[in-house]
Amino acid sequence: MEILNGKEIARNILNDIALKIRALGEQGKRIPRIDMILVGNDYASQKYVRLKQVVAKEIGVMGWVHRMPESVSTLDVVNLVDTLNKDETVDGFMIQLPLPSHIDRALVLKSIDPKKDVDGLTPTNLGKLFQKDSTAIPSATPLGIITLLDAYNIKLLGKRVVVLGSSAIVGKPLTAMMLERSATVTICNSKTVEIADVAREADILVSAVGKPLFVKENFVKKGSVLVDVGSNKHPESGKLVGDVDMDSVQGIPAYITPVPGGVGPMTLASLMLNLMHCYENGRR
Amino acid sequence: MEILNGKEIARNILNDIALKIRALGEQGKRIPRIDMILVGNDYASQKYVRLKQVVAKEIGVMGWVHRMPESVSTLDVVNLVDTLNKDETVDGFMIQLPLPSHIDRALVLKSIDPKKDVDGLTPTNLGKLFQKDSTAIPSATPLGIITLLDAYNIKLLGKRVVVLGSSAIVGKPLTAMMLERSATVTICNSKTVEIADVAREADILVSAVGKPLFVKENFVKKGSVLVDVGSNKHPESGKLVGDVDMDSVQGIPAYITPVPGGVGPMTLASLMLNLMHCYENGRR
Repeated sequence: MEILNGKEIARNILNDIALKIRALGEQGKRIPRIDMILVGNDYASQKYVRLKQVVAKEIGVMGWVHRMPESVSTLDVVNLVDTLNKDETVDGFMIQLPLPSHIDRALVLKSIDPKKDVDGLTPTNLGKLFQKDSTAIPSATPLGIITLLDAYNIKLLGKRVVVLGSSAIVGKPLTAMMLERSATVTICNSKTVEIADVAREADILVSAVGKPLFVKENFVKKGSVLVDVGSNKHPESGKLVGDVDMDSVQGIPAYITPVPGGVGPMTLASLMLNLMHCYENGRR
Repeated sequence: MEILNGKEIARNILNDIALKIRALGEQGKRIPRIDMILVGNDYASQKYVRLKQVVAKEIGVMGWVHRMPESVSTLDVVNLVDTLNKDETVDGFMIQLPLPSHIDRALVLKSIDPKKDVDGLTPTNLGKLFQKDSTAIPSATPLGIITLLDAYNIKLLGKRVVVLGSSAIVGKPLTAMMLERSATVTICNSKTVEIADVAREADILVSAVGKPLFVKENFVKKGSVLVDVGSNKHPESGKLVGDVDMDSVQGIPAYITPVPGGVGPMTLASLMLNLMHCYENGRR
């Protein structure tokens, strides 16, 4: 059972970007800038934004955070989005999710200029991804997963992929990217009947369910690839764990992503890849 | 084996729209208008456009056709699209596919105003469909399929759906609509291994492959629903047939769509449903 070391692959990607940024600086060129909108005081959201800022600083990218109080309205957020859309010094920006429940998330996301949508969450970028449009900015987590599989030379053509979870942020864009690589893709959701049997058909099983200890040995085909997108608190220890019950699946898949150190760091590195994409293509 | 009578259901939908149009006329209101762009002399394309014109006339909608010679450039087509985007008397318009191979189809489709995209082929509408955005205009064929299943009260929640063919026009938007109804969806393509075995897992099997006699008895689970999107010439008789080998599957599914008279008329009716959607929501 080989570990897919997302932490290491992500580090390589970030090092490559850091070299590019340094070269830009030496050539006297403008440095890429990523902005982050953080609404409210959610503990995990604050932590993620801080992490993104730290990574941005490490690789030499400018990272600005716009904090808004919990009480802001949808219109307030859309107005800030609009300002960032128009600000030519901002290459890309993202809104840390979840937003407070009184804010219309769909409306806020739709108002992002697709060219600056580093998180790939606008309808236009999702649609372009499904249409194999090369200008699509993919959602960061699916891009991270595909990049990680590529790094280990795991082929997708003709493979059966099962995705547990049909969210617009992970399950759906990942399906688009898997289809582009000619995989046969099954998307499951909370209503799927006998989900373990469906999962066990997979050559590559991706769990993005958000439930600790959800994926057990009866979900996993011998010799398959198991990708764990979950980021949950263990019900007893309180530690960060994925969706996969590691004790239960031990020795069954050929490859597995750990939590932490698997998909998480790849997502962060992919965000910076998307920023570079925005920087390079966004000069209008 | 019950026939899903698309012709009849489509007729009912068109009759309903015709009543609405007549009411608009009696109220002295503007009548909806659909424009069609037809490039070149492809025989089937000319036939389809003529059919749409006839149906438009029958239900009292204005239908304009813009013919362009085979030799036009991508820019010529985009310029016409731009004119129709801006023309306030045009509620919706579509480009008859396929376009001649020298024309950049993706670029042309991307240039359509999503609000006037009656065929639902812009990236924005496909993305919105995957994001369950109520302003999405769905691609006409998938909308027709869902509407037909609804008319026969065939439930999708928790069902296993297998879609043969992952095109941006049928397979992908249909997947979005099936996911929205909490089905478990598998999308196959030309690289799928042992496709008959995958197909046989389906409670609802949709074939959008474009190959006559492709789906045979070993593809079909007893008691399932079989939807045939194909529109092909029979290799011997030259008659219009779908993807399904009707002799081979006889008696296996519980429900089946015929060709002709199944998905085809539903697609046309759905185009007019989309036009009404554009008409009602497009008044800016």
